[in-house]
Amino acid sequence: MFLQRIYVGIIFCMIQATSMVGQTSSFEVVPLGVKGGNDESNLSSYLVAATGSKQYIALDAGTIQAGLDKAVQQKTFAVPAIQALRKYIKGYCISHAHLDHVSGLIINSPADSNKTVYALPSCMNLMQQHYFNDKTWANFGDQGVGNFLKKYHFETLVPNQEIALQGTSMFVTPFVLSHVHPYESTAFLVRNGDAYLLYLGDTGPDAVEQGGRLLALWRAIAPLIQAQKLKGIFIEVSFPNEQPDKFLFGHLTPHWLMQEMQVLASLVGEKSLKGFPVVITHQKPPLANEQKIVAQLKAHNPLGLRLIFPQQGKRLVF
Amino acid sequence: MFLQRIYVGIIFCMIQATSMVGQTSSFEVVPLGVKGGNDESNLSSYLVAATGSKQYIALDAGTIQAGLDKAVQQKTFAVPAIQALRKYIKGYCISHAHLDHVSGLIINSPADSNKTVYALPSCMNLMQQHYFNDKTWANFGDQGVGNFLKKYHFETLVPNQEIALQGTSMFVTPFVLSHVHPYESTAFLVRNGDAYLLYLGDTGPDAVEQGGRLLALWRAIAPLIQAQKLKGIFIEVSFPNEQPDKFLFGHLTPHWLMQEMQVLASLVGEKSLKGFPVVITHQKPPLANEQKIVAQLKAHNPLGLRLIFPQQGKRLVF
Repeated sequence: MFLQRIYVGIIFCMIQATSMVGQTSSFEVVPLGVKGGNDESNLSSYLVAATGSKQYIALDAGTIQAGLDKAVQQKTFAVPAIQALRKYIKGYCISHAHLDHVSGLIINSPADSNKTVYALPSCMNLMQQHYFNDKTWANFGDQGVGNFLKKYHFETLVPNQEIALQGTSMFVTPFVLSHVHPYESTAFLVRNGDAYLLYLGDTGPDAVEQGGRLLALWRAIAPLIQAQKLKGIFIEVSFPNEQPDKFLFGHLTPHWLMQEMQVLASLVGEKSLKGFPVVITHQKPPLANEQKIVAQLKAHNPLGLRLIFPQQGKRLVF
Repeated sequence: MFLQRIYVGIIFCMIQATSMVGQTSSFEVVPLGVKGGNDESNLSSYLVAATGSKQYIALDAGTIQAGLDKAVQQKTFAVPAIQALRKYIKGYCISHAHLDHVSGLIINSPADSNKTVYALPSCMNLMQQHYFNDKTWANFGDQGVGNFLKKYHFETLVPNQEIALQGTSMFVTPFVLSHVHPYESTAFLVRNGDAYLLYLGDTGPDAVEQGGRLLALWRAIAPLIQAQKLKGIFIEVSFPNEQPDKFLFGHLTPHWLMQEMQVLASLVGEKSLKGFPVVITHQKPPLANEQKIVAQLKAHNPLGLRLIFPQQGKRLVF
């Protein structure tokens, strides 16, 4: 009887430990901005770090300071915003050069510390030619036009090729997306050990954009989903379903997101996506549209995705 | 006795009327953003209208939507922010193309209504080449590069030449300023009837910038001060006095503002500036510096200027 109790106790502990391992998160994400337009205080930017570390990479940089202020207000960060900017953010991965994804980086560059900016050639060229060009703004980088202030190392990425994210334990692989062909955007696949997180910049559906960029991405990540190594996908839904395809401007609707998820399901099996975390980014105001997007996604979610609607300054774990 | 009372009554009414005329304001200003950096939710933009009208012109456009949201919260505007954007703002005068003065215009352009953007050639060229260029952003204008969406009429200004501000009863005269020579910024002299308001974009002191741009401006507006037609000056103080001249980056300190005001006083007489409204714009974070700027300005104000520190969303009258 005594031994039985010990056995039961040991088994109980093992179950608990297994369950805790299951719950252990690999990534922490702090959204600094979640909207797809208008409100300068809340534009796309997501800080990602290996769980427990304070070494963040910003995935896009539409709003930085106002998002950090919000995170500090909500006690997500215990240090002043300026310190979070300078100490916690180790680099920026920019998906494309539209200002709602990079304005915060530019505005905050004078106050920032030395770090790396990562982007594919198309995006890096636009930033160097039109933003950090010594005309519209000082060149805080170490390449491009004019006088180099060398605060930022401009690291031009190679599609599909993994690179270490300096100052962190993470790595990133960029994939080319289409955002009104031939304009390019980027998906960043972030790796921490053998755990992965996928962030997509703005993109339209393959059926509208053509070129099969999303299909190629889904094929690349399918094995990671099947191996349960991919912890979540951040993907945009800019407009409600009422938006006609010819006015998508390289964006997704709830309908088109679910279509693309069906393509992914055809590669990994529907069961693999049940309860899979999908974070919905880049909803465009007005508020009525944002509410419609949420309602439409919830109303038609045949795969049973775990839909997450991020809030500025509130930590998410994966 | 009865007649005496009537006379006294009439005289009293006349005094009251005169006093009311004296108090009648010519301009209303709603600051949409007041800071000189970092905080994307509060960057330089000032809506100005003839008193009692709702026909505003934005002087710079660093932050638009987040400022309108603040103004609506504070009941400065009784309509939703999107309506204020589309109906109340009739145009934008952009002093220079640094993003902390124009990012809000770009970010909000998809949601905006048809209107005019006014700028001197140097600023307009930079905006057309680097922002509204069909690469970093759609060309919402009617000139420049790529496909013209024609939401905005791009009105290139001629220095020192007055032009009507479309959709309002006001007029504007632009003056060239120096913002790290040879980079140009702009002062906008706004006229409503025979009342004037002066707004300066970023600029350094003549002693540092050389070229005498501020002296030329002071000479142009001196007669308006002497005739009591100029109702106020909006001018930047970006750094506290501790900032060395070689690191001014084309900005003013409290010391340099007061030096420039002494130059103005030498043209109009010190008495004319006593109690004259001077609105301090573009203070750069951190907060400790902003507080230092305010303290230093108050501590050394030999001309007795009426120093005004604008707050986002709070209406000012002139």
